[in-house]
Formats: sequence, C-alpha cells, structure tokens
Amino acid sequence: MIDTLAIVGVGLLGGSIALAARERQLARRIIGISRNDATLQIAIQRGMIDAGYQNITDELVEASLCILCIPVDQIASVANTLLQRFPQMIVSDVGSTKATIVRNVNVDASRFIAGHPLAGSEKSGPEHATAELFQNKLMFLCPSSYTSPATNTLATRFWQALGSEVVEMEADRHDAIMAMTSHLPHLASFALASAIPEEYLQYSGSGLRSMTRLAGGDATMWSAIALHNQSQLLSGIHELQQRLHRFEQALKDGDAQQLHQLFLEGRRTYHALGS
Amino acid sequence: MIDTLAIVGVGLLGGSIALAARERQLARRIIGISRNDATLQIAIQRGMIDAGYQNITDELVEASLCILCIPVDQIASVANTLLQRFPQMIVSDVGSTKATIVRNVNVDASRFIAGHPLAGSEKSGPEHATAELFQNKLMFLCPSSYTSPATNTLATRFWQALGSEVVEMEADRHDAIMAMTSHLPHLASFALASAIPEEYLQYSGSGLRSMTRLAGGDATMWSAIALHNQSQLLSGIHELQQRLHRFEQALKDGDAQQLHQLFLEGRRTYHALGS
Repeated sequence: MIDTLAIVGVGLLGGSIALAARERQLARRIIGISRNDATLQIAIQRGMIDAGYQNITDELVEASLCILCIPVDQIASVANTLLQRFPQMIVSDVGSTKATIVRNVNVDASRFIAGHPLAGSEKSGPEHATAELFQNKLMFLCPSSYTSPATNTLATRFWQALGSEVVEMEADRHDAIMAMTSHLPHLASFALASAIPEEYLQYSGSGLRSMTRLAGGDATMWSAIALHNQSQLLSGIHELQQRLHRFEQALKDGDAQQLHQLFLEGRRTYHALGS
Repeated sequence: MIDTLAIVGVGLLGGSIALAARERQLARRIIGISRNDATLQIAIQRGMIDAGYQNITDELVEASLCILCIPVDQIASVANTLLQRFPQMIVSDVGSTKATIVRNVNVDASRFIAGHPLAGSEKSGPEHATAELFQNKLMFLCPSSYTSPATNTLATRFWQALGSEVVEMEADRHDAIMAMTSHLPHLASFALASAIPEEYLQYSGSGLRSMTRLAGGDATMWSAIALHNQSQLLSGIHELQQRLHRFEQALKDGDAQQLHQLFLEGRRTYHALGS
C-alpha cells in the first residue's frame, strides 16, 4: 500500500500503528523518529521499525505517509516543517484535539489531514503497544477545506486497513464531542483522584479503581490537550459542576425524591452506553 | 459452624453470602427472606437457600445468625424487629453506611454488629451472585459499645470463613472513609454520566465507560446511602468541587504549569492505589 511509512513519536499509539502496519503488510519499510533513544531501541527490538532517528532527517524523503504521534501542542509545528521539507509526503496525526491543529497547519495544507483514533490507554510507551489497538475502533478524520481528495483517500484507506472504522467529521464538532466524552471524564478522574485522602486509599475497592484509572495518564499530555480544547472543556466542567451542585442541594434538603431522580438520570446514560 | 443461617434480602450480596456459606459448609441450613417471590425462586433454583419466605416468619427461630442484605434505610428497623422476636439470634448487616444504623438499633443491641463487605458490583440480583465475591476482600465490622464479645467473635469468624479480611472500625470513621472512597466516586460517576449529551455517546471510548460504570447502580439504593451519610458526603462533594474549580481556574488563565501540577496530583493517587 505504501512504500515507506514514517512515524514521529514511537510511543503507545505510534508503536501500535507500526505493529499493525507490519502485521497487515501496509508498508515495505517503516521509519521511526523519537527524541528518546531508549524508545527507538525498544521499537527496533520489538520489530516495529526498520530504522530510527532522533531528529527529522533526509531519510524521510522516501516516506509517502508520515503520522505524527506526539503531544498535541507540537503537532502543527512539526507538520509545517515536514510539509515544507518533503513535497511528496502526506502528513497526518493522532492528537486528541483537532481544531487548533487544523488552524495552525498552514504550509501546503492540501497534504495534511487531521486524525484521531478513539483508542489508547492510560499506559504509555512502545512497550505497551499492540497490533490490535485500532481493531474495530472509531477513527476520526477531520479534513480541512484545504485537504486534497488524494490525501483524504490515502488516510482513509490506511486506517481502514489498520482495522478502524473511519468517521469523517468537522474539527470543531470533533472537539465539542471529545470535550464531553473524553476530556471531561479524564479531568474528572484526575480531580476525583486528587480529592481522596491518601490514608484512605488502603480501604478502597473496585469502584474507586475504575474512577481513577484515567488519572494514570500523562500529566504533560493532558495539560496540552486541556489547553487546546480550552473553551469546550470549560463548558464541560461547568456542566459537571452544575450536576454536582444539584446533588449537593438535594442532599442538603434531604430531598429523597429529587436525589432519586438525579441518580436515575445518570443511570439512563449508563444504559444508553449499552454497558 | 452455624446450624441455621438466615439471610434477609437475597440479591447480589445476600445470594453471594449464601453461595459462599454453602461452598465452605458454614451452615447446615440456609433460610432466605425476600419480598420478591421471583428472587426466592432464583435463589432456590441456584441452590442458595433451603427455604424461602416473603416475610419474617417463626421459622427463623432456628437461626443463630441473620445477615440483613437490604437497603440501608430499612436495616435498623428490621434488626430491631428480629432482635426482639428471636432472643437467640445474632444479627448483622452488609449496608454501605454504618453510623446511622448503629444509632438506630436499640433493642438488645448486644446481639447486633454492623458490617460492610468491600465487595459488590453495579449489577444486582441473585442471578449475579458468586461464591467468590468476598474472597480476599475487606470486611468492615463496626461493633458499638453495646455489641457483646460473643456477637463480635461469631461475625468475625463467619466473615473470615467466607474468605474476607475482617477490619474492625468505629462506625463514624467507616462512614468518613466510605464517603470519600466509595460514595463520592459513585455520585461523581452518576453526575458525570448525566452530563454527557446522549447524541455524543456513540462516539465514546473505554475512558467514558470506566467513568460511568458505577452509574449502573440502583438509584433507590444510592439515594438511601447518600442520605444516610449526608454530612460526610456533602464534605466530599465540596472537596471535589474545589478540585474542579482549580482546574477551571487554571484552564481559564491558560496556566500550563498550574494545570500540569493539578494533573500530577491526581496521578499520584493513581500510583498510590498501586494500579
């Protein structure tokens, strides 16, 4: 499908793309870029990549597709560099926010398409990568008005070949949805986790463990995501505050009927999720 | 160990106690009480109980231990009835709150010991019961100043024989801990779940699923628990709101360093939990 595939950032997502592309024979050769030499060594040992470099290198001239698997606040800048330096290259990414990135890619953006696979883990690093990470998972592609049909087609085919279900969506809508279904739940997990006194943790059960699992995520990565999706996430936090305030009020009033109603509303969502 | 064991409320917890007691041969005979005849039929079919009754019956005169597995707001009243009517019976419970119950059991409270196994599920009903539910789980016993040593010893031995690790604790301290490690996380799950617009749910991943799993719990049960632990839970909600407010402020200010710090604080709890 592709001669040379390049992956910038060979962590959980980048490593999993490499493993899946290998297993499905989507590329003849895979080049990995990571500032961290230890990461490159693991990626080479696990057979993910054929060659690894610590910087953007002329070797990438061979790559027809490059996927950026780096923090959201670095994506637009690296994309601009690559698009300028390698005129044959189609560039995409896996960042959790899309609108800010799309707005800031301004060098021949016809060869850029923003992407976000709904797959991941609170774990990070190539040691946790798996070839099945994207299997039957949603993959958002957010073409801008500049993205060429050829760019869109290559990215769509590539992700479908990795096993994903590709959904095309406008970047702003993507970010509004993710603010509520992903970024807010993550932030709530971190906020809740930090609220529990440490001396009580020995008495916790599976409930608290579920609710704090996402707080295992990387703090730097989540700070960048939160700032990228600032206004939509602020709306989400406000909405959660309102809901908590209603519980608080019903509890203060000893209003069993209202409390019951509030618990039922949450339960409706649980069932709508098909859990 | 016991001749006749009685269980009032043969749902997930009551059914699991029955199954575990059977498997470990802790009682010669097990009697179940449930208002719901369908529940009793399932319990009999699954071999959990030898006989089932829809009301407190004279048959319970044989029972030396009776465990109440009913909503927290019904426990004290049923305990008082049983303690008065059956002078040979030791009574305990599995309710998620303890202080209000201990305060309201006032008929020969020497034969009552409040209990709470740190085990359960968002699922309910005897069809989800398992003999392993309490294996290696914490079991809180909260004797009052009235509880006799013989009552304490029987309950301790019984739960240890079910596979639990028994922890003795004052009822108020139990409720303070549970407000933060269990009741608040549950309430947060319900609040978060109800905040997500339904049309977005189709785009949700495993993160939202983790964070809304607890919102599958029974609304009536959780209303009663919340009201029983009102003041401690209100403190917990207040603490969570403060944490969310700090995230909100850092995000409004675009303060990357403060945001990073807040995410790190949550991550510390995740690691302290040994996840």
